[in-house]
Amino acid sequence: MRLTEEQITRYHEDGFLLVESALDEQEVERLRAAFLRDCEVPGPQVIREESGDRVRAVYASHHRQPEYAGLIRDPRVLGPVRRLLTDDVYVYQFKINAKPAFGGEKWSWHQDYAAWRIADRLPAPSQVNVAVFLDTVDEFNGPVIFLPGSHRSGLVRDGRSAEAKSAQHLDPDDIALAPEQLSALVAERGMVSPKGPAGSLVFFSPEIVHGSAPNMSPFPRRLLITTYNDTSNLPRWAGEPRPDYVVCRDNEPLRVLDVPFLQALEGANA
Amino acid sequence: MRLTEEQITRYHEDGFLLVESALDEQEVERLRAAFLRDCEVPGPQVIREESGDRVRAVYASHHRQPEYAGLIRDPRVLGPVRRLLTDDVYVYQFKINAKPAFGGEKWSWHQDYAAWRIADRLPAPSQVNVAVFLDTVDEFNGPVIFLPGSHRSGLVRDGRSAEAKSAQHLDPDDIALAPEQLSALVAERGMVSPKGPAGSLVFFSPEIVHGSAPNMSPFPRRLLITTYNDTSNLPRWAGEPRPDYVVCRDNEPLRVLDVPFLQALEGANA
Repeated sequence: MRLTEEQITRYHEDGFLLVESALDEQEVERLRAAFLRDCEVPGPQVIREESGDRVRAVYASHHRQPEYAGLIRDPRVLGPVRRLLTDDVYVYQFKINAKPAFGGEKWSWHQDYAAWRIADRLPAPSQVNVAVFLDTVDEFNGPVIFLPGSHRSGLVRDGRSAEAKSAQHLDPDDIALAPEQLSALVAERGMVSPKGPAGSLVFFSPEIVHGSAPNMSPFPRRLLITTYNDTSNLPRWAGEPRPDYVVCRDNEPLRVLDVPFLQALEGANA
Repeated sequence: MRLTEEQITRYHEDGFLLVESALDEQEVERLRAAFLRDCEVPGPQVIREESGDRVRAVYASHHRQPEYAGLIRDPRVLGPVRRLLTDDVYVYQFKINAKPAFGGEKWSWHQDYAAWRIADRLPAPSQVNVAVFLDTVDEFNGPVIFLPGSHRSGLVRDGRSAEAKSAQHLDPDDIALAPEQLSALVAERGMVSPKGPAGSLVFFSPEIVHGSAPNMSPFPRRLLITTYNDTSNLPRWAGEPRPDYVVCRDNEPLRVLDVPFLQALEGANA
């Protein structure tokens, strides 16, 4: 999948780009199966909800599940990322958020790069996020909401809240925009939430202001987010680095597969 | 405003009916001004947020503000109610929910009549709710979400939660549908959230299952809800009745104004 010039311009203007139904149903089905399998692998990379035993998120599945190892190199995913950022990128973070039915927390309005600058001392916002819808995203199940163009304001809030819950794990609340900052941005830029069938992709900037409402539906809303970083922009930890399932250490530049990930997998298994 | 036969059929089929922009901008402006005035009247009818001092809701403003006394008798509001219910109706409850910016609580999935049957021993679900948008309602500011047709299932959940917070005040959580009840209903009926400009109306059944997400926007979303009840269907309190600002005592049948409420007000002031 090659992005058109118009799509590239729109990404840089708006700070995000929706590509509907980039993956087909069979591929999504395989990704969901791999996610369920990955939830059963014991370890700290499986994050559970505070109340109850349901899985809230899983990190670094591309290290354990061949479908995800393929997906992050898929021409429809990695191809556009290289067009939008640079040829030499690696996966800085990989997570699947299973926004559970009836709630799932809302995410406060924030910019990703604010967190990464603090937690990992990433020198520059040279990242591209790719969200993959593992379920249909609609207005009811807690879609991500973007303030279009807000990435062009740079870091709106610099620093974290005095009431931060943990030194190691950044909570969006720690870096949430102040009400007056958000009011001004929304008045200027409005809000947009990309929706679409499972298999859709959203490319988005590490500096775009975004948040999400809870999931009001009775079904989980699973969203995979891979963050690619420029290989020349590595973390510069001062103290203890964050765990390697949160911040991946392998920073070799990724090579794009010649074919979609399922075909590549089947070729490898043939 | 007369409802068409099609609108009446749709109300009975779906359990709700949206009428966009029934009131004009000047009328909405006057209603907002009356709301701000009413928030300043001291008394238990002004409910504040648990955290902070912001107004969460105000009850029975039609007893204090002439704009609201007119509105509940306005031909565009009371006319349709009489078509949908019966000629002899009175206002059982009047409230304005000011869903505050950045949050405002979500409302769990529930049926209004479940609460009123328990709290006031209302014999039958012979009510019509009329919601008036005092602000534009969009997908971001916590619109009410309906399960179309769910009012035809009767009371899905009969009784309240064992963990009810208060004997007197019913919380939607007390009567929230169980997850499996909601999953079944959503699978069958889907979800719909009526949106529209300020001045739009939504007529809805006391038995329709509904909920709402938090308000993610930086602006309040004020929604007025008047509940009309059949005058032959009065509360039958066993113990202490609920306060008269929550459940209005005046059950004389309401007469429809000949003209819109602002015209009537200006006539009265002339």
